[in-house]
Amino acid sequence: MATVPSVSYSITVRLEVPAGGKAVSLLTHAVETAGGVVTALDVTNAGHEKLRIDVTCAAKDTDHVQAIVDSLGAVEDVTIHKVSDRTFLMHLGGKIEMQSKVPLRNRDELSMAYTPGVARVSLAIARNPEDARRLTVKRNSVAVVTDGSAVLGLGNIGPAAALPVMEGKAALFKRFAGIDAWPICLDTQDVDEIVRTVQVIAPGFGGINLEDISAPRCFEVERRLRGLLDIPVFHDDQHGTAICVLAALTNALKVVGKDLAHVRITLAGAGAAGTAVLRLLLAAGAQHVIVCDYLGAVHLGREDLDDSLRWVAEHTNAGGYAGDLRGAVKGADVFIGVSAPGILTGEDVAAMADGSVVFALANPEPEITPDDAREHAAVVATGRSDYPNQINNVLAFPGVFRGLLDAQATVVTPEMLIAAARALAAVVTAEELGPNYIIPSVFHPDAANAVAAAVRESAGGKARGFTEA
Amino acid sequence: MATVPSVSYSITVRLEVPAGGKAVSLLTHAVETAGGVVTALDVTNAGHEKLRIDVTCAAKDTDHVQAIVDSLGAVEDVTIHKVSDRTFLMHLGGKIEMQSKVPLRNRDELSMAYTPGVARVSLAIARNPEDARRLTVKRNSVAVVTDGSAVLGLGNIGPAAALPVMEGKAALFKRFAGIDAWPICLDTQDVDEIVRTVQVIAPGFGGINLEDISAPRCFEVERRLRGLLDIPVFHDDQHGTAICVLAALTNALKVVGKDLAHVRITLAGAGAAGTAVLRLLLAAGAQHVIVCDYLGAVHLGREDLDDSLRWVAEHTNAGGYAGDLRGAVKGADVFIGVSAPGILTGEDVAAMADGSVVFALANPEPEITPDDAREHAAVVATGRSDYPNQINNVLAFPGVFRGLLDAQATVVTPEMLIAAARALAAVVTAEELGPNYIIPSVFHPDAANAVAAAVRESAGGKARGFTEA
Repeated sequence: MATVPSVSYSITVRLEVPAGGKAVSLLTHAVETAGGVVTALDVTNAGHEKLRIDVTCAAKDTDHVQAIVDSLGAVEDVTIHKVSDRTFLMHLGGKIEMQSKVPLRNRDELSMAYTPGVARVSLAIARNPEDARRLTVKRNSVAVVTDGSAVLGLGNIGPAAALPVMEGKAALFKRFAGIDAWPICLDTQDVDEIVRTVQVIAPGFGGINLEDISAPRCFEVERRLRGLLDIPVFHDDQHGTAICVLAALTNALKVVGKDLAHVRITLAGAGAAGTAVLRLLLAAGAQHVIVCDYLGAVHLGREDLDDSLRWVAEHTNAGGYAGDLRGAVKGADVFIGVSAPGILTGEDVAAMADGSVVFALANPEPEITPDDAREHAAVVATGRSDYPNQINNVLAFPGVFRGLLDAQATVVTPEMLIAAARALAAVVTAEELGPNYIIPSVFHPDAANAVAAAVRESAGGKARGFTEA
Repeated sequence: MATVPSVSYSITVRLEVPAGGKAVSLLTHAVETAGGVVTALDVTNAGHEKLRIDVTCAAKDTDHVQAIVDSLGAVEDVTIHKVSDRTFLMHLGGKIEMQSKVPLRNRDELSMAYTPGVARVSLAIARNPEDARRLTVKRNSVAVVTDGSAVLGLGNIGPAAALPVMEGKAALFKRFAGIDAWPICLDTQDVDEIVRTVQVIAPGFGGINLEDISAPRCFEVERRLRGLLDIPVFHDDQHGTAICVLAALTNALKVVGKDLAHVRITLAGAGAAGTAVLRLLLAAGAQHVIVCDYLGAVHLGREDLDDSLRWVAEHTNAGGYAGDLRGAVKGADVFIGVSAPGILTGEDVAAMADGSVVFALANPEPEITPDDAREHAAVVATGRSDYPNQINNVLAFPGVFRGLLDAQATVVTPEMLIAAARALAAVVTAEELGPNYIIPSVFHPDAANAVAAAVRESAGGKARGFTEA
């Protein structure tokens, strides 16, 4: 998929060359000839006759890996021993673990952490269930729940294959917000069963992060769980995306000097992300939106409207436009795509209003290449990490849950999402703001804290941390 | 409940005394007068006029804590500020956490652990689901599942109150066997729902440890799950106890020079633990067992037999003894109690055969006090940590799951349980064996490894660890 060599396709080739020959000097050249990029060359064993060398390099894809290995193998006197894939090596044995926070070195510590001491803690919670948020991991834990039906761009690959993604998500929760998340991969795609299972396992968690559940089932799962549980439920593919889009759009409109209430917005995509983006834009004050799916503009005259699309039709496209995406984009101030690769052309962008904003967020291939979009648009953002203005959910979900957990929130409200978006936008200062910097980097040290503070305050803001008994 | 001061009731009293007075020297005396034991005395702030002191001491129970605080408060010029319970302090914020095993310091690491790199790992598992045991936390993870219906000796306190116990269990899994366990506390006590929920969340785990689910539901839950899942299911209250009892009995019979096939065994308790102990004893070769519950001996003539008790009656008590526990114990070689406090007297033990063995395992109060039992029995064991021969499941479950996970086992068999018991018994060497040392300490460094090796071998023994791709 990648067009340039990427560390996510990084390999290490273990090979042997004669110690005295010139083969060593040819290895880097061989990789480069094949279009790869050498990132490390380590001699791991130096004998009198042979050198064992690990060549680490970035490739574009699986075929490219083979081409690089072939090129290395063609160097005179080289023997290829093993080709290791660094991404797979990183995943061996899993990416997360459980750690005890208490020492269990001796009998005394065992007696406090487990029986008999733990009995008093259990009795305290039995008497006052809210104490579970103080005396257990529930205070800081989130279940990352998926049914494996819409994993990344890979589609319905099932719960086991989704596990590496959920582990990665758990690792991100910890890295960016100190949250203890655990993956829960469900062996069912039935809405009733998903809802009931999450409800049954909820007592041990302080929040539920739904992940990679396909539309329209994800809407019902989230809505029903929110009605059943006393902990917040957040479908990241919907609301994480919506927060980031609203934050980026807030700043992009500042750059072009326009106002959310007055701009014409064309939104491509009416799935989980598209619907959530629409709802949040409307809640934040947008008034002129047309949503397009693969059949063209969504309007009340269409006969294929399900509940979700009907809601879209009722709340957008007041003029009843019934044409295609190209027509809807013409003259628009903002294009937001959460849809499919390559559906927008440079001509389409050229036909937008002056000072146009283009968010082409389909992953990994956007609706229009950033280079093409930038020829005509004033501000361009994508989901890609190799261009400016990457819109990445990692900017939202860790801080959102940090705020929810700290506030001991029982629900997620639209006000919290808007507060999160505004806080995220405000991480970019007026001095920094510009067409190539409308959203902070995922590694910006303030992003998660800013989002967390906004959500915590919006949630009614108990102070962070806990006082002792 | 405790009869002596215990660290599991340890408190820290923060107080102030005049800097120049003699109050400091009276504090330890005040605690001891009240029957407490001072374990630490820290001056945490020394001013010209006042000293702030943290007095840490062990108490017997809640009333005793108050008596100690009152005694401290009665010391002249003392001001009590705060009384902290060390066990509660240890539990604040929970006892476990999730940790990432991979660094996420920069974009490259993010690209390998999460998108886009993780997509290839997911696709590899989608193609070959068994790879989930190599490339995800499933390789090393166990769900600690409870419905909160029979927690410790506390009874049906529900899922939230059970969480501290399950967290403790998870911490023990890590401490003794390097396993990543996560607590799953179920908001249902319906057998069908428990079974279905565990089945639905199973893809992310390499094993299921059922915990503190009351009999007889626990039997059906385990049996049905074993039929449904391709990962091992182990109810620790049953089989962990059974392994430890068989191990201890193996060694106790060596001490008294008797043979399992020939001894008369009276087993008090026909619940989860009792039934599992019985089954394992029979599988290991015991031939003369009488089981008693609160109605007396279980025999085929009783009219209250449910499925579980009927199985017991059909496989024990060949002579059809229909009397009470006292009569069943008379002349027996072995008494094993997993029942209720104080149901056995010294006279009962005196009426057993010469060289009798008494395992009084009811917790925290045994069927007979160890002191009374030791007057007449040759070997005595209990569940208590303040006497020799503590029979503690911690000796079994970590090693059992280590072996199961390493072997990538799909089932648990009686042969594995017997192998585990024999390996645990063999940790006590012939030189060490004696009436006061029939079972290793929970901190014995070889126990978990010995059990793991035996289970792994019995499971068909793939080698420990994994080779690289």
